[in-house]
Amino acid sequence: MDQLQCGTSPIVGFRFSLHPMTDRFADVITEAINETDTSAVWMHTDDVSTVIRGKQAHVFNVAKAIALHAAKTGVHVALNGTFSAGCPGDSAGDVFLDKPDELLNTDRTKQYVSSQFALYPMNNPGYMEVIYREVDRAKASGVFNESMHYASGIHGDIHDVFDFYEEAFSNARSDEHRHLVMTVSMSINSPSHGGAGR
Amino acid sequence: MDQLQCGTSPIVGFRFSLHPMTDRFADVITEAINETDTSAVWMHTDDVSTVIRGKQAHVFNVAKAIALHAAKTGVHVALNGTFSAGCPGDSAGDVFLDKPDELLNTDRTKQYVSSQFALYPMNNPGYMEVIYREVDRAKASGVFNESMHYASGIHGDIHDVFDFYEEAFSNARSDEHRHLVMTVSMSINSPSHGGAGR
Repeated sequence: MDQLQCGTSPIVGFRFSLHPMTDRFADVITEAINETDTSAVWMHTDDVSTVIRGKQAHVFNVAKAIALHAAKTGVHVALNGTFSAGCPGDSAGDVFLDKPDELLNTDRTKQYVSSQFALYPMNNPGYMEVIYREVDRAKASGVFNESMHYASGIHGDIHDVFDFYEEAFSNARSDEHRHLVMTVSMSINSPSHGGAGR
Repeated sequence: MDQLQCGTSPIVGFRFSLHPMTDRFADVITEAINETDTSAVWMHTDDVSTVIRGKQAHVFNVAKAIALHAAKTGVHVALNGTFSAGCPGDSAGDVFLDKPDELLNTDRTKQYVSSQFALYPMNNPGYMEVIYREVDRAKASGVFNESMHYASGIHGDIHDVFDFYEEAFSNARSDEHRHLVMTVSMSINSPSHGGAGR
């Protein structure tokens, strides 16, 4: 069963959906993707979600840029998705790994986001320690919001939040335990966010 | 480290967000939840998502009812969430396990949904076989839509789709491997769904 062997692929993927809570949802989605430089990732959209694949830095860069462009419309938008790497059942195709490392989306506009994440290190008997370690790191880095069932709340400026997510995704997998999944649910411009400047 | 020991709790949870793609999103969410009988589950909403906890049958019943009530508005809605059971870090509280088994939401209105799911059996060396087995079962039961990176497409009438999800969630965990996570991303009334009657 070769398909069940762990690969050594550096491919990182993110399957996500962007949900603008407005009658103009289709325009907001289209514009956010069009305003993002996605040339460093392989991308495919179906009737439920969009998947991007490539080098880790580009995948996180594109995900953040799409969220930020959608946020700038001022409408309430949600980004829900799953980052994944090292899946034994994954194929080697549908990816651009020969792209230069230089990041293509460099907009540093500040934007408050409130989000929740969960790490799932697969086939790793020590996975709970991995999870607790990354949650502790969130607390130390200032983006931790609150504890909750099945997830942890992460909030702050979108750039700090995505920096944390990319670091957590790097830290929670290893050569021995390559298959890692991380779910992220992010809310932007929500009337439910409390506090000034949010 | 008692908190890392697997428990024997029958608690099932679902952390989800409902995203109506309309300017009236707050009303659609509020009405969908108000029209659902949620008295058999513990429920809490924060600024990003809602979590329900209880007996498995009630959790799936309430999740489907909320999606169906939102669907009846005719607006494009998305339901994104994570079902979870057996997490070693979970607490025993915030749950109603003494409720009768009788399901409280019995609306059988037909509604086409297109969705994607992924199973994450935790700390289980045979997890890929578990995943392949459930995907094969989806194909046999008629709700399989298509293969894709990081997920599998599941579609059809909302009742058939939720029946499949609840069965998959039961089948993919065992006394030996209690911690199971299942992500579901569901799209309803989307202009992107192809075909008649969808």
